[in-house]
Amino acid sequence: VSSPSGTARRGATALVAHSGGPTAVINASLLGVVEEARRQAEIGSVWGAVDGVQGMLSGTFLDLLAQPEGTLNAVAHTPASALGTSRLQVGQPELEQILQKFRAHDIRYFFYTGGNGSMGTANQLAAMARDAGIELSVIGIPKTIDNDLAETDHSPGYATAARFQACAVRDIGADNRALPGQVEIVEALGRNAGWLAAATALARHREDDPPHLIYLPENPLPLPRLLDDVDRVFQRLNRCVVTVCEGQLDEHGEPFGADVRPGSRASLAMNLGHRLAMLITQRLKIRARSEKPGLLGRVSLAERSARDWEEARLCGQMAVRVACEGAHGAMVTLVREPGIEYSVSTRLVTLERVAHIERPVPAAWIGPAGNDVTSEFYSYAEPLVGPIAYHEQLEWRPASARP
Amino acid sequence: VSSPSGTARRGATALVAHSGGPTAVINASLLGVVEEARRQAEIGSVWGAVDGVQGMLSGTFLDLLAQPEGTLNAVAHTPASALGTSRLQVGQPELEQILQKFRAHDIRYFFYTGGNGSMGTANQLAAMARDAGIELSVIGIPKTIDNDLAETDHSPGYATAARFQACAVRDIGADNRALPGQVEIVEALGRNAGWLAAATALARHREDDPPHLIYLPENPLPLPRLLDDVDRVFQRLNRCVVTVCEGQLDEHGEPFGADVRPGSRASLAMNLGHRLAMLITQRLKIRARSEKPGLLGRVSLAERSARDWEEARLCGQMAVRVACEGAHGAMVTLVREPGIEYSVSTRLVTLERVAHIERPVPAAWIGPAGNDVTSEFYSYAEPLVGPIAYHEQLEWRPASARP
Repeated sequence: VSSPSGTARRGATALVAHSGGPTAVINASLLGVVEEARRQAEIGSVWGAVDGVQGMLSGTFLDLLAQPEGTLNAVAHTPASALGTSRLQVGQPELEQILQKFRAHDIRYFFYTGGNGSMGTANQLAAMARDAGIELSVIGIPKTIDNDLAETDHSPGYATAARFQACAVRDIGADNRALPGQVEIVEALGRNAGWLAAATALARHREDDPPHLIYLPENPLPLPRLLDDVDRVFQRLNRCVVTVCEGQLDEHGEPFGADVRPGSRASLAMNLGHRLAMLITQRLKIRARSEKPGLLGRVSLAERSARDWEEARLCGQMAVRVACEGAHGAMVTLVREPGIEYSVSTRLVTLERVAHIERPVPAAWIGPAGNDVTSEFYSYAEPLVGPIAYHEQLEWRPASARP
Repeated sequence: VSSPSGTARRGATALVAHSGGPTAVINASLLGVVEEARRQAEIGSVWGAVDGVQGMLSGTFLDLLAQPEGTLNAVAHTPASALGTSRLQVGQPELEQILQKFRAHDIRYFFYTGGNGSMGTANQLAAMARDAGIELSVIGIPKTIDNDLAETDHSPGYATAARFQACAVRDIGADNRALPGQVEIVEALGRNAGWLAAATALARHREDDPPHLIYLPENPLPLPRLLDDVDRVFQRLNRCVVTVCEGQLDEHGEPFGADVRPGSRASLAMNLGHRLAMLITQRLKIRARSEKPGLLGRVSLAERSARDWEEARLCGQMAVRVACEGAHGAMVTLVREPGIEYSVSTRLVTLERVAHIERPVPAAWIGPAGNDVTSEFYSYAEPLVGPIAYHEQLEWRPASARP
């Protein structure tokens, strides 16, 4: 029988950990795990790994059932990982060390909140436990602002980040319209998948609303093509707002001469928007600047999607429920139900089917010229991101001189 | 007698125009002008110049009393200038052309919403009208996110931008804490005055909360000093959030090798944060990145200060009221009343006293080491910016293995 709270319950120990970049709703998934675990007689303790795999390696765990009343609920409404997370790449030796820690602490359930790389780690850990005859249920909880996890309709974290990005483009577009004569490059997060850049299309309400150009990293972007596109828009409107992904590459697979993060793949440029603004200024002689909200785009709760928060929580809850029902080696997915009204249910997919797989924006949702999005993308994204409020404008009622 | 609405009223024509960079609350000042003008029998028509001085030069005016019911109220809650604005520098010939337009349209009241440069233009125009015997009341309405206008306690637009910047630093700091091991440079708007950078101090709630370092452009920043400061914080906390202004210069008066906007003064760097992150990575071998919300910081309403919006509206109203009472050649100022509860009143200052004068953060409000802020700054800024919500954190309750 489960007791409502406290650490003196019977039952197995469950561990929850975060991995990779934080999101604005990952703490809602944490709440979901803890609140469902309280309901499950099989689980006696819920621990959180401090700083992700780092805490798993060192055995640094918090007792989440010992948190004061209300703290977890309050924390669930804060962005960035409350447990701490990590980008540390772990191999076989580290995973063995982690398994030893799990064994030493008799951890029977492991909930790993992350993206496709983390699901690869989870998959490996599950296989090693099975091979060693260790009883361990590993369940993945999807999390990524990039929305590039396979097999799930979308990932918790995406909708809020997409909302931030779309509102940012709308607002920077309002500035660009009020003070015309320049080109604005708005850099969106996203390395190889353009889901966030694509979502800025939702900022449009009227003809010629920003963004005027959207480029997705799914397709290379030759510089002359960019310059032509920008010039055409600018000549017509005397303003231009461009959405690009931080991971956008040119036709040679290079980031337009941008600085890349030391030691990283070329696709993680640090100043892509700035480089493009400089190139536009130099080649087209048009004043251009760039804005890079950057990490603010993944942690700001200013434009939280309520649906995103609820779904993040749901994924945490379901992970615990299915684990207690005997599932293992699987990730929770969100499935969009058919029908006019948006609704989702959750299912499970084996970890192998999501591990290390990046889901790009489907080609059919990208415009015929290889950039921008089609109506299919709007239909997909709108229910997630929610309506982006329209900024009312003055009507064109010219003054006539008094008689 | 004034009629409640419509264009068929008797009375003089008033013109309102915007100048310089938009803010998130400049349209509240526009609403204030129009609603007060409706109450004043002296004013029969209220026109808005399209795109600031550009519309004044070409005679492109909107009839603001002809806007549909509700439009102006809705527009007042949108960011960026609804009329359009301009950075065009005007000299004697253009001002004469503008005066001719004013005369041709019998414009008797001119309300100019802008910063210290715009107040210079307004002052010049007022003097020329007086010299030419043209009846024209010129009243300035303060507006600048930079908060560098003299003679006023603060400027409408500042508090909302400051709030955005402080929340951004808090949230990026949460990300930095959750995924430690790197330095975050957050670039704030502000060329020569550090008011916005200073306001990020309000993000702090507990010891070692971000921002860990704040630099103000009032003082030069030698690169070795920056590196020392960052290294010290990072060695202690394994994380570090730094606020810098886009206008920060080193001890040689140079922007750390950043690209400067073509044709602009060296102090308008385009990628200062990125340059500093690169220098930190290269010299300290610490992973560093930079975020540049940029113009989003002046147009986002996500963190609007309600007080800011109300005061912007009040300044618009008062400009019209004092003009109808016979004032001219003056700017409306906000005066903080003594007392425990925050309250403001408005006064007037002659345009000469604010024209082209930049008000820096007072030296006494800057920390003894030449950076960061003192308690006097907190006392000044908190009532304007409002409380910045604290992100609840998990308590440190380590898990112990089950017996």
